[in-house]
Parts: sequence; C-alpha cells; structure tokens
Amino acid sequence: MKWLYASPPRLLVIGFALIIFIGSQLLRLPVASATGQPTPYIDALFTATTATCVTGLVTVDTGTHYSTFGQIVILLLIQIGGLGFMTMATLFAFFLKRRISLKERLILQEALNQSSIEGIIRLVRRVVLYALAIEATGALLFAIRFLFDMSPGRAVYYGIFHAVSFFNNAGIDIMGNFRSLTDYVGDPLVNIVTMLLIITGGLGFVVLSDLTDFRRNKKLSLHSKVVLSMSGFLILFGAVVIFVFEYSNPGTMKPLPLGEKILSAFMQSVSPRTAGVNTLDLATLRQATQFFIVVLMFIGASPGSTGGGIKTTTFTALIGAVYAMIRGKEDVVLFRHRLAQERVYKALTVTLLSLTLVMVATMILSTTEDHHFLKILFEVTSAFGTVGLTMGLTTQLTLTGKIIIILMMFIGRLGPLTLGYALGPKPGRVLYRHAEGKIIIG
Amino acid sequence: MKWLYASPPRLLVIGFALIIFIGSQLLRLPVASATGQPTPYIDALFTATTATCVTGLVTVDTGTHYSTFGQIVILLLIQIGGLGFMTMATLFAFFLKRRISLKERLILQEALNQSSIEGIIRLVRRVVLYALAIEATGALLFAIRFLFDMSPGRAVYYGIFHAVSFFNNAGIDIMGNFRSLTDYVGDPLVNIVTMLLIITGGLGFVVLSDLTDFRRNKKLSLHSKVVLSMSGFLILFGAVVIFVFEYSNPGTMKPLPLGEKILSAFMQSVSPRTAGVNTLDLATLRQATQFFIVVLMFIGASPGSTGGGIKTTTFTALIGAVYAMIRGKEDVVLFRHRLAQERVYKALTVTLLSLTLVMVATMILSTTEDHHFLKILFEVTSAFGTVGLTMGLTTQLTLTGKIIIILMMFIGRLGPLTLGYALGPKPGRVLYRHAEGKIIIG
Ligand SMILES: [K+]
Ligand SMILES: [K+]
Repeated sequence: MKWLYASPPRLLVIGFALIIFIGSQLLRLPVASATGQPTPYIDALFTATTATCVTGLVTVDTGTHYSTFGQIVILLLIQIGGLGFMTMATLFAFFLKRRISLKERLILQEALNQSSIEGIIRLVRRVVLYALAIEATGALLFAIRFLFDMSPGRAVYYGIFHAVSFFNNAGIDIMGNFRSLTDYVGDPLVNIVTMLLIITGGLGFVVLSDLTDFRRNKKLSLHSKVVLSMSGFLILFGAVVIFVFEYSNPGTMKPLPLGEKILSAFMQSVSPRTAGVNTLDLATLRQATQFFIVVLMFIGASPGSTGGGIKTTTFTALIGAVYAMIRGKEDVVLFRHRLAQERVYKALTVTLLSLTLVMVATMILSTTEDHHFLKILFEVTSAFGTVGLTMGLTTQLTLTGKIIIILMMFIGRLGPLTLGYALGPKPGRVLYRHAEGKIIIG
Repeated sequence: MKWLYASPPRLLVIGFALIIFIGSQLLRLPVASATGQPTPYIDALFTATTATCVTGLVTVDTGTHYSTFGQIVILLLIQIGGLGFMTMATLFAFFLKRRISLKERLILQEALNQSSIEGIIRLVRRVVLYALAIEATGALLFAIRFLFDMSPGRAVYYGIFHAVSFFNNAGIDIMGNFRSLTDYVGDPLVNIVTMLLIITGGLGFVVLSDLTDFRRNKKLSLHSKVVLSMSGFLILFGAVVIFVFEYSNPGTMKPLPLGEKILSAFMQSVSPRTAGVNTLDLATLRQATQFFIVVLMFIGASPGSTGGGIKTTTFTALIGAVYAMIRGKEDVVLFRHRLAQERVYKALTVTLLSLTLVMVATMILSTTEDHHFLKILFEVTSAFGTVGLTMGLTTQLTLTGKIIIILMMFIGRLGPLTLGYALGPKPGRVLYRHAEGKIIIG
C-alpha cells in the first residue's frame, strides 16, 4: 500500500480517476439519457472523461443524447475538472510537500506573491470567487443573446452551461447535432464573450491572481509576463496564418464578409489553445490549416489553467534555449531573467514525452481506424491537448479507438510529467557525479 | 565582404552551393541526357542537389533519362558530396579554427585519439583509403551478382555505381524506371552487401576511425559507443516494428516467405537512416508504418557520416535528458559519462530547428501540392534527412514544390545548426549574467 503515501501528483491522478469513475456511473443511468435508455458504458465513460478532463470530444451529441439531469452531471464534472483541478493542483503543492521540492514551492510563492499558507488559501478563495464571477457574467451575456432565439428558461440554462463550459475550456456545447457555435460564426457578442471566457480560463491560476493584484502592485511576475506575451503572440500569429490559408477557401471563409473572416480567424486561432469551440467547419479547412491547428493544439494553454497541451511557458523556454544556442549564449534569458538549466530540461522532457505519446497513439490508431493520417493525428492531438476539436473522427471511433482517446484525454489533462513523477521512484540524493564525456551533436 | 572571412560552416555552405551549381550546369547539357535533348534546368538542378546532398529523391529516372556521361557526373557528385563532406567537415574543424571552439576541437581530438594536426591528416587519409576499399569490395560483390542478369561491362559499371551510391548513402540507382532494388527483395547477397555499405557509410568518420583503431586500443570513445549502440538499437527496434505492422499487409510482406519477410523488415529499417533504398513498395505500406519510417528518417544517421537527419547522438542526448529528468537526476549520464549542459542544449536546438523546418515546409507544400498530408510529410522528411525514400510524390512535384525540396535537401545535408552558426553573428563574450527568474513548466 506504499503508493497510498502518495505524492501530490499521484493523489491528483487517483482523484481524477475516481471522479471520472463516479461520473461515468451516473451518466450510464437511464435517467441521464434523453430517451430513458441506458447509455452504453464506453460512451458514458467517454463523456465523463471528456467532461472531467475538459476536453470536449464527444461520441454522442451532448445536446440531444443526454437528459437535463445528464447535462447537469456533465456541467458539474466540467466545473470540478476545470476550476477544481486548477486550484487543487496549487493547493496540493502547499499541503503535501513531500514530493514537491523547496524550489517548486518558492516558485509558486513568488508567482503568487504570498509567503504564508494562509495567504495562499485566501488567494485561492479569491480566485475561485473571481472565476465564478467571470462565469456568471459570461452566462448573463449569453442568456441575453440567446433570448432572441429561445425561451427565457432555456436561454438562462444555455447561458450558464456554455459560460461554464467555455471558461473551463471544456468546449462542450448543448446546441445539438454537433453544431458547436457554427450558427454564430458572425455574431460579435457570442464570439467575443466566448473568446474572453476561453482566454481568461486558459491563462491559469497564477496569472489570474497576479493580474488581480496588478492594480495594487503595478508589477507582474516573470511567469505572468511570459504567459501573457506568448499567449498574445500565438493568438495574433495564429489568426494571421489561418486568415492567409483560408481566405480563398470556398468551404470556409470565402463566402463570409471581411469582418466575419477576421472574426473567424481569431476564433479559430484562440480555440485550439485549448477551448475546442469551432465556428468554421474543420473538415473543409485546407490541410495546411489543419496541420497548423494541430501545432497550436499541441502547444496549448498555460500552466495551472483549465487548458492542456505542453503549455505556453514550456514552448517559450524551448524557443529561448534555441535562441541562446544559436546566438552562442550560455544562458536562456527571458525578460532579463535567466532560466535555470533544470527548467529547460523540464521543458524538453515535457515536450518530448508529449510528442512521443501523440506519435505512438497516432500510430496505433492508424492501425485500428480506417481514416486518413491527418484526421487521426488531429484527433489524438486534440485529445492530448484537451482541446476537443475534431475533423469528425470521434463519433466513428472503434471500441479500441475510444479507449485510446480516453487514455489520451486523461494523460493529456494530468500532464505527462505529472504522470512521470507519479510513477517514478523517489529521487535519491546525488552522492557522486560521473566524469564529463563528449559526443558530437548534429 | 565580411562574410567571406568565413567560419568553416559558412565555407561548407558556400562550397556545397558551388559544387551543386557546377553539377547542374553539366547535367543540363544535351550530352548528359540519353536522348541528347537538354534537360530542363530545374530538373538538372534537382539532380545535382540530390546527388551532392546524397539524398536520392529524383524527378527524372537516373537509369533511363541520363547518358553514361550524365551518370558519371552524378557518381562524382555523390562521391564528393558523401565522402568529401565527411572528411572536409572534419578537416575544416582543424584548419580553420576561427569559429570552432577549443572544446569542439578537443572533442574531435579525443574522439579520433589524435593530438596533432599531422596525426589527423594521416588519419583522414587512412579513412578515405578504407572507404574506397569498402566501396571497391561492395562493387566487386555487386558486379558478381549482376553478371547473372547482364553483360560483364554493364555488371561492373552497375556494381561501381551502386556501391558508391549506397556507401555514400545516396540511394540513387540506375536500375531504370524508379525500380530501386525491388527486383532483389529476396536476394540475400544484394540485401546484405547493400545494408553493410549503408551502415558503414552512416556510422561516420569518427566512428570508422575509432573502429579501425579498435584492434590496437581495445577501447572505444564514448562517441563511438553511443553511435554504435543507438544505431544497433534503432535497426533492431525498427525491423521489429515494421515486421509487426506489415506482416499481414497483402500489398507488401504477406506474399513473401518468412525469410524474405525478415530480410525486408531489416532492409526497410536500415534504409530510412538514411540510405533511401527500398525493396518494398512504400506507397502500399500501412499508414502506421509510413509514419514510423518518417520518424526513422528524421532521426537519421550519425554525425560526420554520409547520412542526414538530426543524428543518433542527438537523439540519444535527448533521451538521456528525459530519463535524467524523470528519475530526478541532475546530470545526463551515458555510459558512465556525464554530458555537459551545452551538449544537451545543442541537441535540443538541432531537433527543434529541424522539426520546425520540416513542419513549415510540409505546411507550404500542403498548399502547393494536391496530395495527402502524410505523403507530403514523408517527402519533406525524406529530403531533410537526405534519405531519398518517396511515396511517389517527387516526380509529380510542381515547380514551387521542386524548389522547396531542393532547399530542404541542401539544408538537411548541411544541418540546421551549421546553417544557424554560419548565419548567426560572432558570439560575444559574456560580460554579465542576468539574475535567475522562475516560470512554471508543464
Ligand atoms: K477543451
Ligand atoms: K540518401
């Protein structure tokens, strides 16, 4: 029972598995489905995983397959999986200090500008309240817009569901028939509210709390600066690339007026990181755009956020290392601060493990699913990055395919490194170092 | 004219460009083509690049399009590009010490077990002689086998051409009609000689010289140990994966007897790293196998060899870093030697630049060529890794496509890092270090 002593990452893994298990048991009940027929267990498990891991890939249509009870279970799983993970992961780091190094704690403390555990708890509570306030505002704005299209009760319910789903980057919708937001491709209110919910949710706990303190402190931590600038860059760069690739595509942007072209370019750039809401038909995008979205999905959101992927900071650390190497500098420097070697190695590890995982899963699915490679790669990366975008493969998955995607969503949410730490042995003390050896690289 | 002062990498880039230019001018002449009609310049340039960069992707069939004169030009370009690069790159490192750090020189000296420049030159000469001896042996064995299928003169010529082409990992054949070695899928002699030529050519200068000294020294350098063990592992692992994936594929292995199945699995595992000879039809391989071969092509051969890719040592350093991180160790340890941080960063840089290059080129080709994503990714990786395998895209490339593939072959041969160094400014001395900053990774 040694594993029960449990490092925080191990507890996270077990806790998540438990929530998904309970959710799947509730969702398989007849009362959870719209028709009153019990849902096959694999689909209930898939739905529970997609909701808890805030992914958004669905094998059955959430809006038409599940009853209101089922949808509320899904909503709760999203809230627990998104906001809960975000705060719990941070709290764990403070309460269960066994496997978390002093350095890790110092980073969090520095980032949060708090030095006592009491201060941290106060802060977590504050951020949760802020998050709920953001969700409530989003729900209200959505409800007002939806009033034009449906009954007041339904508009409020839809408003709440989508605000929670989008802030937590779940990207699950109950519009029905897998439509996502394609009906609202040109609606400024829906688009802007959705993007703001996604972006604030994806910045992560540390940055949100840093931002709430900004008025008082007038300064941001290095972590927040990196997250904000890289997120901003990726959104802008992504929108430009998508706009250029899709401008003349008759299946997507060509029929739209210029304003909607720009709006949809931004929407499709924000969404892969890692909301999973789409307003353009992904299957008709050009291959180049589809692959570009795969890359955006792989990078994902920021650490400790409701989003997945290798994270913006990881990506920044890698770019920093490459830049330093090319310039012949010894240190990786970001905003006039040098990164410790260990941070860069960690970024490298997260990236390579993630890449390996995505490649192996894609290879396996290539043998079980009879679809084109890019469609499979897209699906696997989407599951890993807990994005939820699909080129249409999810509903056609074989049983093996569903199991692999469930595993990918789970691993993707908890992070390959968390899992790696959780499964690895306790690191021993370094008693001696080997002599330096030399090999030729490149 | 400051760039003419030229670091060794810059000289390499210029030298290579010059050789390709001269080769393309010779190959466009009417006398170089079998019909006596001048070859279109883009195809002559493509052929000169593919030969000099020992890639093997061809837009026109070498066996039927070019005259014997043309083929001999190609053969010379292969020999200069393969063996020449291999030795020149090393000699440069000693003669033009301007941009090569003391550390780099020490690595080479250690790896070569030579401490004086005279010793190095002697060694280079020895390795060239060994290389020519290996090529001659291969040519003889091929010629004997070909005697059964063709006239003696032709058999000798074919023997020499293919031995040189395979040892230099060019993978260019003159069998005609793009057949490569598919006619000899089950021939043990041809397969084994080919594989031995490819493998010895791909181990690299340093390892070859280390091996020739082994009888005397009874010990290998760390570099050679890493190269030999990783190469061995990849060949074995690759063969197993390909065997499993293709065993029941009616388009490839299914019709073959067990012995030929195993032989072809090894052949297809050795070849992507980076010979480019195939005995199975690549277009009918399963998607999973095709993608797996893309990965093998990306890893490629060993440093200072006739092969391309990110190199086995780079790949090993990355795996070592990931392993160290997961185990919570500070040092990357290979064979009881620790790697300097700078080596790991270099491995990371080479890999990420290469990955970015392959992805961007694939994205661009996705917009210019009307083919499936995997076929394009395969072609681009093959060009970058100077492998020369194709799923059939090369001959169907548009003009833009040809230019991009030419650039990929050129960059792939000289290495993104060489180019990065060549283009970057002189590194200044470190006058101060920034304070350490912290960001959360993963
Ligand atoms: K999502
Ligand atoms: K080749």
